[in-house]
Amino acid sequence: MAEERKIPYKIYLEEDEMPKAWYNVRADMKNKPAPLLNPGTHQPMTAEELEGVFCRDLVEQELDNDNAYIDIPQEIRDFYKMYRPSPLVRAYCLEEKLQTPAKIYYKFEGNNTSGSHKLNSAIAQAYYAKKQGLKGVTTETGAGQWGTALSMACSYFDLDCKVYMVKVSYEQKPFRREVMKVYGASVTPSPSMETEIGKKINAEHPGTTGSLGCAISEAVEVAVKNPGYRYVLGSVLNQVLLHQSVIGLETKAALNKYDIKPDIIIGCAGGGSNLGGLISPFMGEKLRGEADYRIIAVEPASCPSFTRGKFAYDFCDTGMVCPLAKMYTLGSDFIPSANHAGGLRYHGMSPVLSQLYDDGLMEAVSVEQTKVFEAAEQFARVEGILPAPESSHAIRVAIDEALKCKKTGEEKTIVFGLTGTGYFDMVAYEKFHDGKMDDYIPTDAELAEYAAKLPQVNE
Amino acid sequence: MAEERKIPYKIYLEEDEMPKAWYNVRADMKNKPAPLLNPGTHQPMTAEELEGVFCRDLVEQELDNDNAYIDIPQEIRDFYKMYRPSPLVRAYCLEEKLQTPAKIYYKFEGNNTSGSHKLNSAIAQAYYAKKQGLKGVTTETGAGQWGTALSMACSYFDLDCKVYMVKVSYEQKPFRREVMKVYGASVTPSPSMETEIGKKINAEHPGTTGSLGCAISEAVEVAVKNPGYRYVLGSVLNQVLLHQSVIGLETKAALNKYDIKPDIIIGCAGGGSNLGGLISPFMGEKLRGEADYRIIAVEPASCPSFTRGKFAYDFCDTGMVCPLAKMYTLGSDFIPSANHAGGLRYHGMSPVLSQLYDDGLMEAVSVEQTKVFEAAEQFARVEGILPAPESSHAIRVAIDEALKCKKTGEEKTIVFGLTGTGYFDMVAYEKFHDGKMDDYIPTDAELAEYAAKLPQVNE
Repeated sequence: MAEERKIPYKIYLEEDEMPKAWYNVRADMKNKPAPLLNPGTHQPMTAEELEGVFCRDLVEQELDNDNAYIDIPQEIRDFYKMYRPSPLVRAYCLEEKLQTPAKIYYKFEGNNTSGSHKLNSAIAQAYYAKKQGLKGVTTETGAGQWGTALSMACSYFDLDCKVYMVKVSYEQKPFRREVMKVYGASVTPSPSMETEIGKKINAEHPGTTGSLGCAISEAVEVAVKNPGYRYVLGSVLNQVLLHQSVIGLETKAALNKYDIKPDIIIGCAGGGSNLGGLISPFMGEKLRGEADYRIIAVEPASCPSFTRGKFAYDFCDTGMVCPLAKMYTLGSDFIPSANHAGGLRYHGMSPVLSQLYDDGLMEAVSVEQTKVFEAAEQFARVEGILPAPESSHAIRVAIDEALKCKKTGEEKTIVFGLTGTGYFDMVAYEKFHDGKMDDYIPTDAELAEYAAKLPQVNE
Repeated sequence: MAEERKIPYKIYLEEDEMPKAWYNVRADMKNKPAPLLNPGTHQPMTAEELEGVFCRDLVEQELDNDNAYIDIPQEIRDFYKMYRPSPLVRAYCLEEKLQTPAKIYYKFEGNNTSGSHKLNSAIAQAYYAKKQGLKGVTTETGAGQWGTALSMACSYFDLDCKVYMVKVSYEQKPFRREVMKVYGASVTPSPSMETEIGKKINAEHPGTTGSLGCAISEAVEVAVKNPGYRYVLGSVLNQVLLHQSVIGLETKAALNKYDIKPDIIIGCAGGGSNLGGLISPFMGEKLRGEADYRIIAVEPASCPSFTRGKFAYDFCDTGMVCPLAKMYTLGSDFIPSANHAGGLRYHGMSPVLSQLYDDGLMEAVSVEQTKVFEAAEQFARVEGILPAPESSHAIRVAIDEALKCKKTGEEKTIVFGLTGTGYFDMVAYEKFHDGKMDDYIPTDAELAEYAAKLPQVNE
């Protein structure tokens, strides 16, 4: 153990060891992710078409399947220095509690006011919007992490920020809303009466509490109709995974400092932004045949896109105004049950990760909610960090794998992504303590019904 | 500027550079803090008397005016490594926003789930309780940071933790309460019907929403009446300042790495735990004539113990069961107005800091609440951290001093303590945004009324 402890509890990179370029895993993929399609013509979206919705430089990044490294502009690197590098933590206390021979590390992305990794892409997207001379950006938010991150980024670059927040979250999470207001964002409950799609959805479903797919449609509509505005998205897109590669690059650099080679890499997966970012450089090595890793995506049993979805073209939003993406999906109409991991309730999954999963390069497991909160509480008590419900999905599987090592005696090295903190999720913890948390799992029949409504696309 | 930036945004110590001993500023004080007195006899409290209420080793630390350094036990140092060293941050973005030639640094203590510096002393007190073989500890909490910190510490050492939470906070801050429950603490709204003093206060003041002084009385009563329990306190006491010296020692070590000498050191002051900890090693140099610094305590205008209180013996609690302490005080009956910095609403002040202030070794200023929140929001927008209302008192004065430098052109180096984050204080931010925050300041007549009720003690 004395030998062991040469590795500090927290590995921090020096400022000059921080990544200077993002890594684009698509460059090393043999099977590239399928292109986005125009929802009308089913033809691949051109750069020109995409630039009506997204910022110019971001469209370039979205379509770039070739360049392995893309320089991080100095302004973004300066902002990163405010809250990065994030620590790679050796979970000595958790290991001891579990009495496992496994060595557990986690990359902790929660030490910033957005409370999650979302800021890594928010600041990049805000930077390119500013560079293009835009007035502002629009977006949606569910649980609120992405909206908060974008508000912070826009405030830094003095951009207007319009957030459409899923109505149920807007009402149940007034504090998240208030944090966004501290950063000067306007926050509108969705569906609103400000947009055509919002009015339509309100008319068709009176009293609806909204969904992420619907909020996306509203945000896109506002971006397209208002000169000087573009829409930005916190997950799913290729560009987001690119920006989030900073997580994996830092993790790898920190591990390399101590000659640590992970056996298993685990991340929670909603739209895929954190998981994709964390695994990118490791997956790159795997794709190039330089190393092998077990890579595990963890999703909620209530919203099991990877483990029970179809790999097919689907709409990204409810209003069907966005391009079609080929991804593991439950269908754009799928309404996940009231799972408390708001960041993991999206019906689809990153096209990059979907392709990698389909190619057998990574695994996926789904976990039930109460098991996730059990892991969360166990972790909080020994590691001193109250984790976000989303992150706790990864904790659950990390603990499960560490307990397998305990049985077999294997000293595996496990790395997982601790994406954020749960300070705005105490209602969920309260339900867990009060025994009021349910573990709803959709039936095969339900899933089949949504899958039947997938758009017909001739590839 | 290029030269400047050689200093990173965040200075982290290596694990082996972390302090191995706490610094006891009393050892270097010419005028020692006055002893605690028995409330009945007005004689100095003996170790034996104190050990009925406090843990044995902590009593020793409380009474030790001589040893300058006290070793930090390995178990505590190991726990510190979980969330320390805390970063010393160069506020480049704030400097740029203010266009000041001043160089601003802040020691950020909010990167742990308790959300503040309180964990530094909580883990020490829990350790000594465990070492003594106790079953558990009792305490009070107002805003909730201390209760959360103690819950975390007790969970780590498997101790029972009974928290008496000021009723108004218990009701208004359900999420703080829930965090404590994650860590297995029992949380009781105070005044309760579980204690004699609680019953008495409830009978005398039906419908009362409680106060810190009252919660202290209840926690002490429970500790004294239950075998195997002791009472622990998060501020005011000498032992707490000793533990919190880890803040100042790390700050000094980080500054020394880059040969930085501060001109001004600023901290918010409620009971004095953060301020005392931050300034200790600097004050030590000042007391020994090795260096000079301007040291500024910042308190709310609504609870101005330093700037408008008396330096006199007073009760620490409403129930008058605690020892008398000589301190700057507004009177133990003083009920501060509804200020949102719950951690700064205590009627008294650390006897150590009171003596140093009385000896002219430090300054104090009081600031109004809305000005504090203006500073908080300005800081959040450029530095990316949403500060606690308490910490924002220090931000206010740091900004004011930096703006003075802008006028004079002086390149002063300012260090302030950013004690914590405001994630559980969004109700206060909301009031600020809605223009519903008031700036109540007690009148001279009101203060005189409370001062007249101070106990008569012949020193």
